[in-house]
Amino acid sequence: MRKIYLEDTPLKEAQEKIAGRIRFKPTIEVISTREALGRVTAASIYAKVSMPNFHASAMDGVAVRTEKTYGACEQHPVRLKHHVDYVEVDTGDPIPDGYDAVIMIEHIHQVDSETIEILEAVAPWQHIRPIGEDVVVGEMIVPDRHKLRPVDLGALLAGGNVTVPVLRKPRVAIIPTGTELIEPTAKVASGEIIEFNGTVFAAYLQEWGAEPVYYGIVKDDYELIRTAVSAALEDADMVLLNAGSSAGREDFTVHVVEELGEVLTHGVATRPGKPVVVGVVNEKPVIGLPGYPVSAYLNLEWFARSLVYHYYGLLEPVRQRVKVIMGRRIVSVMGAEDFIRVTIGSIDGQYIANPLTRSAGVTMSMVRADGLLRIPPGDLGYEQGEEVEIELYRPLEQIQNTMVATGSHDLAMDVLHSLVRKTNPERFLVSSHVGSMSGIMAIQKGEAHVAGVHLFDEHTGEYNQPFIEKYLRDKEVVLIQLVYRQQGWFVKKGNPLGITSVQDLIKPGVTYMNRQRGAGTRLLFDYLLKASEIDRELVYGYSREAVSHLSVAAAVAGGTADVGLGIYSAAHAMDLDFIPVSEERYDLVMSASFYRSSQGQDLLACIRSNEFMEEVEALGGYSCRDSGKILYSSFSLGE
Amino acid sequence: MRKIYLEDTPLKEAQEKIAGRIRFKPTIEVISTREALGRVTAASIYAKVSMPNFHASAMDGVAVRTEKTYGACEQHPVRLKHHVDYVEVDTGDPIPDGYDAVIMIEHIHQVDSETIEILEAVAPWQHIRPIGEDVVVGEMIVPDRHKLRPVDLGALLAGGNVTVPVLRKPRVAIIPTGTELIEPTAKVASGEIIEFNGTVFAAYLQEWGAEPVYYGIVKDDYELIRTAVSAALEDADMVLLNAGSSAGREDFTVHVVEELGEVLTHGVATRPGKPVVVGVVNEKPVIGLPGYPVSAYLNLEWFARSLVYHYYGLLEPVRQRVKVIMGRRIVSVMGAEDFIRVTIGSIDGQYIANPLTRSAGVTMSMVRADGLLRIPPGDLGYEQGEEVEIELYRPLEQIQNTMVATGSHDLAMDVLHSLVRKTNPERFLVSSHVGSMSGIMAIQKGEAHVAGVHLFDEHTGEYNQPFIEKYLRDKEVVLIQLVYRQQGWFVKKGNPLGITSVQDLIKPGVTYMNRQRGAGTRLLFDYLLKASEIDRELVYGYSREAVSHLSVAAAVAGGTADVGLGIYSAAHAMDLDFIPVSEERYDLVMSASFYRSSQGQDLLACIRSNEFMEEVEALGGYSCRDSGKILYSSFSLGE
Repeated sequence: MRKIYLEDTPLKEAQEKIAGRIRFKPTIEVISTREALGRVTAASIYAKVSMPNFHASAMDGVAVRTEKTYGACEQHPVRLKHHVDYVEVDTGDPIPDGYDAVIMIEHIHQVDSETIEILEAVAPWQHIRPIGEDVVVGEMIVPDRHKLRPVDLGALLAGGNVTVPVLRKPRVAIIPTGTELIEPTAKVASGEIIEFNGTVFAAYLQEWGAEPVYYGIVKDDYELIRTAVSAALEDADMVLLNAGSSAGREDFTVHVVEELGEVLTHGVATRPGKPVVVGVVNEKPVIGLPGYPVSAYLNLEWFARSLVYHYYGLLEPVRQRVKVIMGRRIVSVMGAEDFIRVTIGSIDGQYIANPLTRSAGVTMSMVRADGLLRIPPGDLGYEQGEEVEIELYRPLEQIQNTMVATGSHDLAMDVLHSLVRKTNPERFLVSSHVGSMSGIMAIQKGEAHVAGVHLFDEHTGEYNQPFIEKYLRDKEVVLIQLVYRQQGWFVKKGNPLGITSVQDLIKPGVTYMNRQRGAGTRLLFDYLLKASEIDRELVYGYSREAVSHLSVAAAVAGGTADVGLGIYSAAHAMDLDFIPVSEERYDLVMSASFYRSSQGQDLLACIRSNEFMEEVEALGGYSCRDSGKILYSSFSLGE
Repeated sequence: MRKIYLEDTPLKEAQEKIAGRIRFKPTIEVISTREALGRVTAASIYAKVSMPNFHASAMDGVAVRTEKTYGACEQHPVRLKHHVDYVEVDTGDPIPDGYDAVIMIEHIHQVDSETIEILEAVAPWQHIRPIGEDVVVGEMIVPDRHKLRPVDLGALLAGGNVTVPVLRKPRVAIIPTGTELIEPTAKVASGEIIEFNGTVFAAYLQEWGAEPVYYGIVKDDYELIRTAVSAALEDADMVLLNAGSSAGREDFTVHVVEELGEVLTHGVATRPGKPVVVGVVNEKPVIGLPGYPVSAYLNLEWFARSLVYHYYGLLEPVRQRVKVIMGRRIVSVMGAEDFIRVTIGSIDGQYIANPLTRSAGVTMSMVRADGLLRIPPGDLGYEQGEEVEIELYRPLEQIQNTMVATGSHDLAMDVLHSLVRKTNPERFLVSSHVGSMSGIMAIQKGEAHVAGVHLFDEHTGEYNQPFIEKYLRDKEVVLIQLVYRQQGWFVKKGNPLGITSVQDLIKPGVTYMNRQRGAGTRLLFDYLLKASEIDRELVYGYSREAVSHLSVAAAVAGGTADVGLGIYSAAHAMDLDFIPVSEERYDLVMSASFYRSSQGQDLLACIRSNEFMEEVEALGGYSCRDSGKILYSSFSLGE
């Protein structure tokens, strides 16, 4: 039963194959028009009554008989008698029988309570809103296969359509499979995986106008899965299985679909997203989605979304596109279509895109993505500085109002982020964690507005400024103090290996977890080794790199390492012991243009607020005694 | 109590006044993450567990101890023993204790059931998905004031957040006022108006993330309205009143708000939308929206929408904009901001915008609009051919796939419209009714793809072709037969005035309802008068113009006219008697480029389908014996 290779079907071909095979036959339901927002009409709808269905006054004033006004002019005003020649009407009032025009209140002269005077003759039907002005009986209000918007509901009701025939929503069954899966919880044992893809599928389907039906988790067992699929097909218009769509020992989807119906595609030529199963059982689509979240959500969109629109007979909406400059070189493999999640920064009037991780397993990369870059199968990628087109995940006006932070990660940046959102609705902040040195390089290349840095210079004993003077010599920048923070050793509760100094790291049986090259914490570690004259080769694990304080702490907590260097709050979050090593300065480098902008000033105001300082110090291991202080600038601040 | 003049406050000023006065204090509710789609976070949310929280295999293959693989190469393969040196793992499986790398199934050679051979040494942690690769404990998943998308729900669950704190939705009370208002129905007595604005408000508010609370209709009575507003303020975060926001005798809103709180603005400098009341009662906004639907919906967006986003602390989304060419001259008054609804056609590679009616009372103009043109207060309008920017109501990809029909109105066009939607999900059709001659001119100017025409030429006795040869001489066009249809007199049931011919129209006491200049039916009427040698001055009502068959029929049914000329189906829809006069040809003129396009060919296929012909003939008064026949073309069709 084990088949090793998947196909490499081009995505478009796989989509056309299934769309060409499926002919949905939606049933019709008649529902209250008031509840019909977002539903799709099952017929063209015509007005049953006119709105208004009487002649109504279009103004506040008096209704008159026009023949009585003939001859009126400034020289010869005409007087009209109440209830004989005129009656008061307000906007919307019916015009009484025998009256045929309205004069605005501003244009009459009240002589006494029973008499008015006018200075102008009036044409018949002046200021009268005729029957059917808004909606006329028999008029088509909305066509067939029309997704109803708020204003459509108004026109339908105005035309006397209290109910409306709509297409039943397509029911889409979601069947999560996997013996290791558990329902969402904050208590997860080793080997267990929280089932969350099903919730994401359901939410997307809801947005697209389908009715998701979430079936419980099914264990990795061929019979159980087949039974679940057969049961779901009784009721659903489409079935989604997740995961088990690849070609491994426990990947049952392809075999189940093969037995019950027909597999149209097994494997598409995309990266990520390749291991998908697209099949037909009882004339209904059955889609086997891959387990990795990013692959799963991309395939959901490629197949489930397009089939939902196919069901309704509606045009699939397209995302807004924008031209951007690639901030980094990106390489693609020939023959497969690449889908790269990117962040986009609006910096000095240009949109700069930077790729996020390409790993299909990182849900957070979808959360963080501003857009998707599609590299055609025949392309080898793009150079840094090249212009490419991005499909947007976030609205452009948000991206324009987003501060792009990079450099080293610190929890104080998260606090700052929350505060920015809370106090400035129109401001957003995105941060990527690339280490202090890469942060400085990003400012140098104009890829970011601010960079968090904590770089210790062993020659001067100073933090950050020497590096800025060296690497940002030709750039206008300003250096702002964010926080002081404790760096120290992360060790398991109770410090079982008794680690107190860098010398203890070269004891036999001690495994270290290092930070990536360019990280300030790595430079600090190298300095500590050098100061104690220890050869880095003697540190077991020196070459293993984690990209954040939390990842290092997670490695120690998970047992892959015995010790690592990092900040107090990360140790605290992972319930580890923390042995202080030194206090360091974590600063922000800002480009001058950002510093001068209202965004930059808003950010500075947040840094200098009491709320920021209190929240950060409450995390432990921080001091905000100089937060917001300007430490250095390479240009005149004009303050 | 009667105040006649409204203010002319600039819109932006009025918006800033209310936003500056209101400080919402939203309460927080903790809800299930699975139900949190579209909700706005009340705090930054951090991961409580790591995903995965164990080291997992990233591939199908075998887990190995790397030290056992050292030295392996093509020349010296290394053999590994089952359950001693290796164990099978599938993607996602935990790595058993003591193992520290994974080799892909493709790269091993099974020697026997207990032994494998490898040709390459393996680095530690190869193909292992480390703890926290997806989400790491302590990591910020989403910031405060973030509208949750499907993928955010996944990341929240992956990080062990089974519940999430969100802002309670703002409750918005909707109070329709008006003695003439009735709940939606298909049976409307004269003087009654169906209340439908409330449903439109509720649907918009729902889309914007608020919780609409619909209060019943309140009669035009100061005390009743004040009591309703006071009661609504107990529970709601914002109150909407509709209508009574102007300065007429029965416009109570401004007085009620004045008594209970403070009026900030009464009247904005916009056309339409001027008569709005914006006030504050108990620190909550109370908005008095105008009665005319278009004014009401624009003000709803200007004030209620921006206050909902203000409540959440979110950036208000902006609509996509597109540059278009004005198809017609549009005039604006100095001093007021004009909001013009337009249709947009994508014709020969250009977007052409044409204004819809400017009447604030026409809901259908909002249904039909593709976008909104905003003319600043200082502008006098735009010339035909000028480039302007439009805010889109429909997605651009729909507009690109929309066939633009104009000319004379006929119900057969509605049938065609439905059929297009049903058989071609990707195609849309919009039609404006401007009369036959204006339809020909629209084709001439490149403003439309097709025009419905029925123009009788009294010199040749022929329909349509003589006009095309005359007015579209320098244009490549094709003329296609749509339907034959009966024209006749519309008279009240039983024909009380005994009208049988054009001579009867000049009898004393007979009021006629004419069609607008350029309408084919008007030309036919003029021809009938001429043939009978009747002076048009003798026809009472000759100068009154209705813009469609249905409007003429509505006038007769409503008693404003005794007789009109038009097609059978309109008489039938309004339950009138119909006295046949003649059979005429209703054809479609198409531009050559449209005829040659796939859109044009799809439309032709619909016209030639049995379904079209059957549905049209079922309306009565039609014959489809030649539908789809090409009558004339000014270029070689190449068929």
